[in-house]
Amino acid sequence: MRMYDLIEKKKLGNTLSQEEIDWMIAGYTDGTIPDYQMSAFLMAVCFQGMNTQEITAMTLAMAHSGEMADLSAIHGVKVDKHSTGGVGDKTTLIAAPMVAACGVPMAKMSGRGLGFTGGTVDKLESIPGYRTALPREEFFRIVNEIGISLIGQSGELAVADKKIYALRDVTATVDSLPLIASSIMSKKIAAGADAILLDVKTGSGAFMKTQQDATALAKTMVDIGEQAGRKTVALITNMDVPLGDTAGNAIEVQEAIHTLMGKGPQDLTELCVHLAGNMLFLAGKGKIEECLELAQKSITEGTAYQKFYQMVERQGGDVSYLEDPSKFPTAPEYAVLAQEDGFIVSMQTEEIGAVAAMLGAGREKKEDTIDPAAGIRFLKKTGDSVCKGEPIAILYTHCPHVVQDASERYQTAVTLSQQKQAPIPLILARVTADNISTTTMEERKL
Amino acid sequence: MRMYDLIEKKKLGNTLSQEEIDWMIAGYTDGTIPDYQMSAFLMAVCFQGMNTQEITAMTLAMAHSGEMADLSAIHGVKVDKHSTGGVGDKTTLIAAPMVAACGVPMAKMSGRGLGFTGGTVDKLESIPGYRTALPREEFFRIVNEIGISLIGQSGELAVADKKIYALRDVTATVDSLPLIASSIMSKKIAAGADAILLDVKTGSGAFMKTQQDATALAKTMVDIGEQAGRKTVALITNMDVPLGDTAGNAIEVQEAIHTLMGKGPQDLTELCVHLAGNMLFLAGKGKIEECLELAQKSITEGTAYQKFYQMVERQGGDVSYLEDPSKFPTAPEYAVLAQEDGFIVSMQTEEIGAVAAMLGAGREKKEDTIDPAAGIRFLKKTGDSVCKGEPIAILYTHCPHVVQDASERYQTAVTLSQQKQAPIPLILARVTADNISTTTMEERKL
Repeated sequence: MRMYDLIEKKKLGNTLSQEEIDWMIAGYTDGTIPDYQMSAFLMAVCFQGMNTQEITAMTLAMAHSGEMADLSAIHGVKVDKHSTGGVGDKTTLIAAPMVAACGVPMAKMSGRGLGFTGGTVDKLESIPGYRTALPREEFFRIVNEIGISLIGQSGELAVADKKIYALRDVTATVDSLPLIASSIMSKKIAAGADAILLDVKTGSGAFMKTQQDATALAKTMVDIGEQAGRKTVALITNMDVPLGDTAGNAIEVQEAIHTLMGKGPQDLTELCVHLAGNMLFLAGKGKIEECLELAQKSITEGTAYQKFYQMVERQGGDVSYLEDPSKFPTAPEYAVLAQEDGFIVSMQTEEIGAVAAMLGAGREKKEDTIDPAAGIRFLKKTGDSVCKGEPIAILYTHCPHVVQDASERYQTAVTLSQQKQAPIPLILARVTADNISTTTMEERKL
Repeated sequence: MRMYDLIEKKKLGNTLSQEEIDWMIAGYTDGTIPDYQMSAFLMAVCFQGMNTQEITAMTLAMAHSGEMADLSAIHGVKVDKHSTGGVGDKTTLIAAPMVAACGVPMAKMSGRGLGFTGGTVDKLESIPGYRTALPREEFFRIVNEIGISLIGQSGELAVADKKIYALRDVTATVDSLPLIASSIMSKKIAAGADAILLDVKTGSGAFMKTQQDATALAKTMVDIGEQAGRKTVALITNMDVPLGDTAGNAIEVQEAIHTLMGKGPQDLTELCVHLAGNMLFLAGKGKIEECLELAQKSITEGTAYQKFYQMVERQGGDVSYLEDPSKFPTAPEYAVLAQEDGFIVSMQTEEIGAVAAMLGAGREKKEDTIDPAAGIRFLKKTGDSVCKGEPIAILYTHCPHVVQDASERYQTAVTLSQQKQAPIPLILARVTADNISTTTMEERKL
């Protein structure tokens, strides 16, 4: 086999066989296929796409290119969750304890990631003492004893994906559905869970700007998951506005604690109920309606909060921060003011994420440090009415020199109008192996 | 500027500015832009193309990436010629002396090249003693004194093109019109001539299989040449059958000598008259009709042969080989026989070229050696009638073990039919900066 021929084949729009894809991924992983051939191939995929068989073959080849996590030491059905990312997405911190509270083990390894704010692991590290790096045995023991543990990704999962992703990142080949789907699913499959829930975001703050694109990605990933023997469901959720009332790290942990206590913002609570409910469904806890109810109860009855508390305690975190969230570090506050009267009709959420990063909440390169106290509190969101001069957001930062720019950029990202617009549903669709159902208002209100 | 953005821009189908292209070619030449980014860019070009401004900018940037040959020491208008390559194309050996015989200086540097047979330089080296590597000053002196010198390419012309071509060759990005056009023209512009004649081949033995593709390539190259201040004309010529009666090295030199003496095959003679005529036209020797007549006369009156003789003598070649071409080395002969009665209606010329290479006439890698005596003599070509068992070609080779395969492959490449087909014109069109004229039968008969 020659890589030249595989590039040519894809360039002409033909289909690669499983053997060809296996050979290619193995060769790229061990370095016998050079970067310049792989990048030409990836660009050809951007134009010609891949069919489901090819995407599945690529996903499995990448999943098996590194360590395959073995979670068999954990009792019960293991469910994993993945979000395609957005602004203010702190759902893992809330939904995982909800699921655990309902008796399904949550052995979740999360990433740090690059982006507007830190990843789940960065956020958890705002709690002094919380250990995100645990030996495998301790991780398993905690899950078996209390039903939940959230730690940082360890081990070399999906090595080929890491190498290919790094190449895509510098060759403008990131935005290709087959490449996105295989990248996400290779990591999830290597992570070892029995079932996978995907939260595919769409809108101004998401990678997939339209619901159609998001649904296509979701459908592809669900198909791959099922073909790999993992029960998989995807929710298509709205990222046209930031999720919840905050974006940052410590500030998002505070919000998560409030939400677990039943005092969180409505959108965030609603999404977490759906995420947890669907994970319970995947774990075989009953019909979807029953599972959503179970999830809701874990908040109302305080069991989810208790799980979170227990986990923080077991992983060495200072629980006094949970009892008194005002102990979290803060940074100087700067209000962003409305420039006129009106209704907020849209928020360019990606721009708002970029503002959070400017303030110090995110990182661009692996080596960058994150300021846990930096972030944004959203006082007004899409649908709210504002008066000229009224604060619409609070910026938290230790970098006073960026405040003016950040504030103006935030104002520009928010569009006001005299006419209120109808709200966009939060959960737009649910994708399973054999069905795509658009969620009705009724269901969402559950 | 970031290469990432340029790749993205091209991927989206947008146009790169001259500054961007200059920056990119400079960066790739000096190694600051890595191969994996360039190959992704090249693949994007395969799908999105480039407009005339972009192709011209790329051509000029590549031309200036190495040495720019300075031919000002040679008196008169310098005309260069380039053929896109085919089987049996020995026209430089004939047309160059024809042009020189009419008073236009021919300072021609040719390549060795990879392919079915050697390049012009390899062919010339079949003449014992002929020196293809001359110091620049001696080359200029010979041209100024006798009007012609054919030598091997020296110096580092169009370094960026060499690097990009090597990358295209391993990333399946060769067959892109803008990349082919800029590659050819960057070398021609760097080679320093005032005017350029392009022989763009089309048909089963050419890179461009259809006349339409060949014409598009020709038009693009003519436009680039003119924008770079070089008078440029292209002929679209037929490569559906091998050119002339031979393919090889020594055997092609023999055929060139016969043709210069007025005893060559009709197709080869006709094409050389048109090539030489157009070069004379580019040098300002008169109207095209007059120039074609001048070219024709240089053969009829023997002046072209005299020029060739003079050049071989001046460059150290043994002229006794010209006086008695039977002195050229030969190899054992094997006849290919017709398998049935009929008319030859088509020849898969690329396949026939591959047979010549099998016999030892060509090279695949730079390091390969060429057998000057290996090659093919075409006894019957498209349009000829044959009887079963009659020889249709003679194979010359020192490798008896390849003969059976080569012979069968040759037979398969030749299609016989009971019905004779109308001949295809040899010269299909002439492309100038402001005109594409399809050559009529009348003109071709001139």
